[in-house]
Amino acid sequence: MSVSGAPLPSAPGITDIRAAAGRIRAQAVYTPLLESPHINRMTGGRVLVKAEPLQRTGSFKFRGAYNTLSQLTPVEKAQGVVAYSSGNHAQGVALAANLLGIKATILMPADAPAIKIANTRFYGAEVVTFDRYRESREELGARLCADQGATLVKPYDDPRIIAGQGTVGLEITQQLHDLAIAPDAVVAPCGGGGLISGLSLALKAESPDLAIYSAEPENFDDTALSLTRGEIVAVDPAAKSICDALMAPQPGALTFSINKLLLSGGLVVCDSEVRNAMRQAFYHLKLVVEPGGAVALAALLSGKLDIQGKTAVAVCSGGNVDAPLFAEILAG
Amino acid sequence: MSVSGAPLPSAPGITDIRAAAGRIRAQAVYTPLLESPHINRMTGGRVLVKAEPLQRTGSFKFRGAYNTLSQLTPVEKAQGVVAYSSGNHAQGVALAANLLGIKATILMPADAPAIKIANTRFYGAEVVTFDRYRESREELGARLCADQGATLVKPYDDPRIIAGQGTVGLEITQQLHDLAIAPDAVVAPCGGGGLISGLSLALKAESPDLAIYSAEPENFDDTALSLTRGEIVAVDPAAKSICDALMAPQPGALTFSINKLLLSGGLVVCDSEVRNAMRQAFYHLKLVVEPGGAVALAALLSGKLDIQGKTAVAVCSGGNVDAPLFAEILAG
Repeated sequence: MSVSGAPLPSAPGITDIRAAAGRIRAQAVYTPLLESPHINRMTGGRVLVKAEPLQRTGSFKFRGAYNTLSQLTPVEKAQGVVAYSSGNHAQGVALAANLLGIKATILMPADAPAIKIANTRFYGAEVVTFDRYRESREELGARLCADQGATLVKPYDDPRIIAGQGTVGLEITQQLHDLAIAPDAVVAPCGGGGLISGLSLALKAESPDLAIYSAEPENFDDTALSLTRGEIVAVDPAAKSICDALMAPQPGALTFSINKLLLSGGLVVCDSEVRNAMRQAFYHLKLVVEPGGAVALAALLSGKLDIQGKTAVAVCSGGNVDAPLFAEILAG
Repeated sequence: MSVSGAPLPSAPGITDIRAAAGRIRAQAVYTPLLESPHINRMTGGRVLVKAEPLQRTGSFKFRGAYNTLSQLTPVEKAQGVVAYSSGNHAQGVALAANLLGIKATILMPADAPAIKIANTRFYGAEVVTFDRYRESREELGARLCADQGATLVKPYDDPRIIAGQGTVGLEITQQLHDLAIAPDAVVAPCGGGGLISGLSLALKAESPDLAIYSAEPENFDDTALSLTRGEIVAVDPAAKSICDALMAPQPGALTFSINKLLLSGGLVVCDSEVRNAMRQAFYHLKLVVEPGGAVALAALLSGKLDIQGKTAVAVCSGGNVDAPLFAEILAG
């Protein structure tokens, strides 16, 4: 988190995103762009789905984590890293640290999905849980860093993270070029805004007029509200949502400084729309998508963005969902 | 089905498979090769999963169907096609026919998964259901063809089908080359044998010494039995299996003539091993895999082929599974 009043670091540019793509190339999955005639028919348009559940660690977060950790100095690497995350950033940092031989300590909410906590440990990180409703992860993270001399790897408000997530946009640009498709809109999930800001920087470098929308769950529509008001607005951090990955209560300072310039608007979906999108992804894309990963697809399927006769890209950002919840959602 | 005593058509060669790749390129998905450190750890080796659930229509069958239908003469195209299938070939033929403007009539067992019947209709084919335990699909298909002057599109025992499925092998060869990996073994699901025979022709053209294994479910291990005996053996066609896609009671004449020369052996898995493989694909690959599509992964996870310290490719061949069954399997 940027300290109030401190200058923001610079937003990354397309050169930084291309450099990130080079750093992650040998480690990250170049995820496919999927399409289903069923989903097309439901929307009346054409929907291309960027399938980040197939990314290493099951979400796009590995991209930014690896891009950041691979740029640490030898001394920083030796002293280890700390991150706080509801789970996907945790896994991304844990695997990136493992691959780079760096010790990682991750602060995770005790109520994070079991699969996310288990996987973070599997990738070799030390997990410290905290109470999301009573403790400040920022304070806990700062204390851990001070104690260990470790580097805090922020979940979104860092130009290296944003550049890493932006590689999703570079890939989409290339894939659309290969398909000879010029989309009318791109929609991506938004928590703190790292993915959508990086994606937008990458896409707008090629297509300055492309309409890009954030998608958020009800109760955590802080970016939509902030875009409308033109300034950062926070929501109640204690609110509930099925979208555990998107529960940042306010946009990042750096990410919002980018998003307010580049986004055409913020779309908001309710839990039942998210559940439906997860079912459609199961049936028609054969993709396991977690709730937070499905909000962009949900926005298109529920008509929050009308794409009749148009072409849109929806980023499905992650697939780390526990089996009991997934089974319950399949049951409708 | 080849008439007893009639000469077999020639097996396709690598040139035919490359030509098939050219025909399907603009329509088929070049599916990714996925990897999970969890699955690697479970096997003690390295497992690369070819993700054909992400193929159009949710299985590899679209490849062979499109390759075959695109080679019909204008007169054949005008008179339509007939196919019989438990569901994945049905969907492949239905979509290929739709894309090529050909009328398709599909014979499907009445107890095929609902998703497969619904999708076949969605793709524009006329579906005629039959009783799998009491009626002969071959006879029904022949009668429909005679009535309509239509062309029968066989599910596997046709060189055009085999060449189309062989494109899976071409892609694996290219993907392994890009990763600089030389695998020790490749395992793929086997019903009538179209996929494994085409795959083997493609892979052996590059790597003549590569070990390739078919994987089948208990009760429908006709290829494993036939490989052991050196001649075609049939199993009880009325047997039950969770793997609806792999219930051909005996190998095809053409596919087995290829497989007996190229396969190193046949692996057999039980239903509980299939269920476990589907769960692991859900958790660690974020991929929806149907029972029949999971038998090769099941063979590796259950140690039917020991790959400790080795590298193997497992083809997951399809993902068309009904939600209630998938939810039941997730529950363990």
